[in-house]
Amino acid sequence: MTLLSARAAALDADDPFAETAALFHKPDGVIYLDGNSLGMMPRATAERVAHTVHAEWSEGLIRSWAGACWIHLPMTVGERIAPLIGARPGEVAVGDSTSVDIFKALSAALDLQAPRTVLLVEDANFPTDGYIAEGLARHRPGVTLRRIDPERDLPASLDDDVAALLLSHVDYRTARILDMAAISAAARAAGVLTVWDLSHSTGAVPVDLHAADADFAIGCTYKYLNGGPGAPAFSWVHPRHHARMHQPLAGWFGHAAPFAFDRLYRPAEGMRRFVCGTPQILSLAALDESLKLWADVDRDALFAKSRAMTAFFVEAVEERCGRFGLALVSPRDPVRRGSHVSFDWPDGGPVMRALAERGVIGDFRAPATMRFGFAPLYLSFAEVARAVEILEAVLETRAWDAPAHRAPAEVT
Amino acid sequence: MTLLSARAAALDADDPFAETAALFHKPDGVIYLDGNSLGMMPRATAERVAHTVHAEWSEGLIRSWAGACWIHLPMTVGERIAPLIGARPGEVAVGDSTSVDIFKALSAALDLQAPRTVLLVEDANFPTDGYIAEGLARHRPGVTLRRIDPERDLPASLDDDVAALLLSHVDYRTARILDMAAISAAARAAGVLTVWDLSHSTGAVPVDLHAADADFAIGCTYKYLNGGPGAPAFSWVHPRHHARMHQPLAGWFGHAAPFAFDRLYRPAEGMRRFVCGTPQILSLAALDESLKLWADVDRDALFAKSRAMTAFFVEAVEERCGRFGLALVSPRDPVRRGSHVSFDWPDGGPVMRALAERGVIGDFRAPATMRFGFAPLYLSFAEVARAVEILEAVLETRAWDAPAHRAPAEVT
Repeated sequence: MTLLSARAAALDADDPFAETAALFHKPDGVIYLDGNSLGMMPRATAERVAHTVHAEWSEGLIRSWAGACWIHLPMTVGERIAPLIGARPGEVAVGDSTSVDIFKALSAALDLQAPRTVLLVEDANFPTDGYIAEGLARHRPGVTLRRIDPERDLPASLDDDVAALLLSHVDYRTARILDMAAISAAARAAGVLTVWDLSHSTGAVPVDLHAADADFAIGCTYKYLNGGPGAPAFSWVHPRHHARMHQPLAGWFGHAAPFAFDRLYRPAEGMRRFVCGTPQILSLAALDESLKLWADVDRDALFAKSRAMTAFFVEAVEERCGRFGLALVSPRDPVRRGSHVSFDWPDGGPVMRALAERGVIGDFRAPATMRFGFAPLYLSFAEVARAVEILEAVLETRAWDAPAHRAPAEVT
Repeated sequence: MTLLSARAAALDADDPFAETAALFHKPDGVIYLDGNSLGMMPRATAERVAHTVHAEWSEGLIRSWAGACWIHLPMTVGERIAPLIGARPGEVAVGDSTSVDIFKALSAALDLQAPRTVLLVEDANFPTDGYIAEGLARHRPGVTLRRIDPERDLPASLDDDVAALLLSHVDYRTARILDMAAISAAARAAGVLTVWDLSHSTGAVPVDLHAADADFAIGCTYKYLNGGPGAPAFSWVHPRHHARMHQPLAGWFGHAAPFAFDRLYRPAEGMRRFVCGTPQILSLAALDESLKLWADVDRDALFAKSRAMTAFFVEAVEERCGRFGLALVSPRDPVRRGSHVSFDWPDGGPVMRALAERGVIGDFRAPATMRFGFAPLYLSFAEVARAVEILEAVLETRAWDAPAHRAPAEVT
C-alpha cells in the first residue's frame, strides 16, 4: 500500500457515504471523475424507466397522463429539487433544457424591469448562457448585452440601465464559487434582478436562494443530480415576482387550464407558468426517481466530503505530479470551490484521453483545462488516490504522447 | 357475426398492414382510438430504451455522447422523419417540444421578414400555437398578432405587413386538411412565409413540404409516430432560408462548434442551428427507435387504409348511432380529412368516459367534441366495428349518465 492509498483508506473509513455508492451502477474498471458532466445511474432509476415504458406508456397509454400523474411531473419533480437550493414548495418547475430555461428567466426579468434594457452577462459563464443572452438581444429590439468579469466589474457595472445580471454560481471551468448573497444584495440595491445558473452547484455545494435573496435561478439535473443524459433543467423564481412575471414560451402546459383548450393564453398561478410544452416523460420520470435518494442525504456531511475530496486530490496531484508543471486553476480554498478541480496543462487533451484509456474518466475543456469532478455520493478516496497514481504514470511515461491521443475525439 | 363485423372482417382480410400490429404492444381489453394523441409503443422501442439506460448511460457514461452517437441524435432522428414530410436530408432537427419549436420558427420568420411585423395565426389552431404567438408578440416590441379563419380570410388577409402565417395542416379537432400547396403559393405571392403545424399530419396523411413550397414546419412525434409520451418535436425549414435564418434559442447544441466553448455564438451550418440545449436522450432514443419501422411502410397504402377506416367509422356510427343525434364535425370527404373523426354531442364527455370504462379509448375536446383516432399501423377494422357497437350500447342504455361519468376527469 502506498502512502497515498493509506491516507485514502483512512478517509474512506470515516466516510458517512461509504454505503451510498451501492445505490449506483459502477462500470467495472472505471474511476469516474466526470459526475459533474453526466452523473452515474442510480439503480432504482433503471427500474423506474422500465416501469414508465411498460406499465405507464404501453399498458396505460393516454390514461397515464392522469393515472400515472405525468401531468403533474413538471411541478412534483420540482418539489424534490426545492430543498437542495433553499427553495420552498411550488417554486421550482422542470421540463425544458437549461438553455431554454435561461431564455425564459432573462425574458421574464426584462419584462419585469421595463424600461431597463441591459443584460449583464458574466463573460466566463458556461457558453450557452452567453449564447442565449445574445439570441435574446438580437430578437428583442432595444435590448443590449454587456459582458463583465464579476470579480472585477461588480458592483460598478450595476447602473440604472441594467435589467438583469446572469452569473454562474460555480464556474464550469475553475469551480470558483461566487458569493451569491453579497452579489444579490448589491444587485438588489441597484434595482437589478439576479439570474443564477446553478448547473455546477446543485447537489455539490450549499445553495440557499431565499437566504441570498436571489431573483431567478436555473440549473442542470444531469450532473450531481444524476437525472440521466440530457435530463430536463429546473427554473426557480422568487415568489415576490410570481404574480407579475410572464415568459414568452407561453405553451399550453403553462396555461391555467391546459385541457380547457381556451383560445387565449391565461398563465397558470405561480411557477407553473414557466412550464411550456408537453414534457418529455421518459427523461422526466428518470429524473424524478434519481432525485428520491436525496431525501436521505445529510447535505452538510455531503458537502464536507466534497471539500475533503477535492482538497485530497489537489494535495495528491501537487505531491505526485507537481514536477510536470500542472497549474491549478481552481481556488485553493475549498470553501471557495465547487466539487470539481481543474489543472491547466498545454497537452491536457491528450492526457485526458490517455487517462480514459486507463479507465480514469474526466474531461477536457479547450484550450488546456483538465477537469476532474468528484461526486461525493458515489466516489471513494481510494478511487481518487488510484486516479492520481495513474495520472502520474501517464505523465511519467509520456503515455499521452501517442498519435491516438493526439487526435482529438469529437466529445471528451 | 353482425353485418358490421362481417364488413369489417372483409376489410381486414385485404389489409396490407394486418401484420404490422404485432410490432406494437396492445393492452388486453383495449380498443385504442387515441393514437392521434399518444401512439402505442413499438416493442422494439422498449428494448432500445433499456439499452440506452443500461449500456449507454450506466456503462458508457459520458463516453456515450460520442460512442453511442448521442451528440448526433437531433439530426439523425430528423433524417428518419424527413421522408415522411417530403423533406430532404439535413433539413429536419429534433429535440425540444412542439411549443418551443413554434417559437423558434415564428421568431426566425420575423427575423427574415423585417420590417414586416404581423403574425397571422389561425384561430382554430391547437391552442399552444396561438399561445406561443401571443407570448412572442408580447416579448418582441412591434410585433402584432391577427387571428384568422383561413377558409374565410385567405388570401385577403395577406397584406404587406404580414411576416408569417401559422396554420395547422390537419385541424386537431375536426381533422380538416388545409390545401398546403395552394395556401403556400398565395402566401409566397404576397411575400408571406408559411409555418405549418404538422402535429396531426405526420404519419397520418400525405405531406410534401417541397412540393407545396412551404417555408417552415414543426410537428409532434408522440402521435402517429409513436415516439413515446412527450417525445420531442421536429422542425423543418426550406433550405432557401438556411444561410440567413437565426432563431433566438441560440443554445450551445446549435453552435458551429459546441465543444470549442467559444465566447460568442456562431450558428451551425443549416438546420442544426435550430437545435438549442442538451437534448433529453432517453426520450430522443425512444423516438429514434420508433421511427425505424417507417422505413418498411408503404405510405400510400397506409394513407389509403386510414381513409378507408375513417370512412368505415363514419358510416357505421351514422348507421348504428344516427338516431341519437351525433353531429359529424369532420369533413365527410375522406381526402379532406386526417386520420381522426369527431362527432359533437352535448354529453360527449360522459360518453367518452363510459366508453373508456368499457375499454374503448378515445378522447374529448371541450365543449362537446368526441374525438376518435385511427392509427392505421396497428388498428383493425374489427376493432373499429366493435367500438361502434359499444358506443351504440352506451348511448342506448344511457350508460354515460352515471355520476362517475358526469364528473370530468382532469385529463381525458
